Amino acid sequence: MTKYDPDLSLLFHALADPTRRSILTRLAETPARVTDLAEPTGLRLPTVMRHLSVLEEAGLITTSKDGRVRTCAIVPEALAPMRTWLDEQRAIWEARLDRLDAFVMNAVKESEE
Amino acid sequence: MTKYDPDLSLLFHALADPTRRSILTRLAETPARVTDLAEPTGLRLPTVMRHLSVLEEAGLITTSKDGRVRTCAIVPEALAPMRTWLDEQRAIWEARLDRLDAFVMNAVKESEE
Repeated sequence: MTKYDPDLSLLFHALADPTRRSILTRLAETPARVTDLAEPTGLRLPTVMRHLSVLEEAGLITTSKDGRVRTCAIVPEALAPMRTWLDEQRAIWEARLDRLDAFVMNAVKESEE
Repeated sequence: MTKYDPDLSLLFHALADPTRRSILTRLAETPARVTDLAEPTGLRLPTVMRHLSVLEEAGLITTSKDGRVRTCAIVPEALAPMRTWLDEQRAIWEARLDRLDAFVMNAVKESEE
């Protein structure tokens, strides 16, 4: 039953933290330097760096270094597997509702005969 | 910057595990007894019970007990906040692309004047 999809697990894990989600939302607007990302969080730089590592490991952001300045950018297509998973769940659920519909319609028809 | 949304964090945390995702997919098809959910995972019952607790805490499933038999059912609307979050991220990202488009179009126009 268990289909192991490590990428999807990393993705959901990365998004399970409010600080990481807010960093991602910020980066969706524009790329930013690590120090600029850290400032509004009120967190210490090493803590923010750990959050950025989790986001990078999940493929949600990329970072690049120019001298001493590290800049982060979002990878918007990285959210696609999550959308696919959501759509799959909805499809299974809707198929179930359709079967239930058909069952009820049949029962009504039989009771009328 | 950090908008704390505990429900969304619980939701993403619950989905960050492949066993929990597969249980959810199974329940999207039909409600099931705990013992039937445990069987295909190959995991011990207490482990499966812990996974089910995480899913229930996130609001993704409900459980009910009839005598000694506990049955689980999916709460399909529980995934809605995740879809909303995804749509918000996409809207921010697309607004950024629109601004970039406008900027490039302007630059092209100015270079032609």
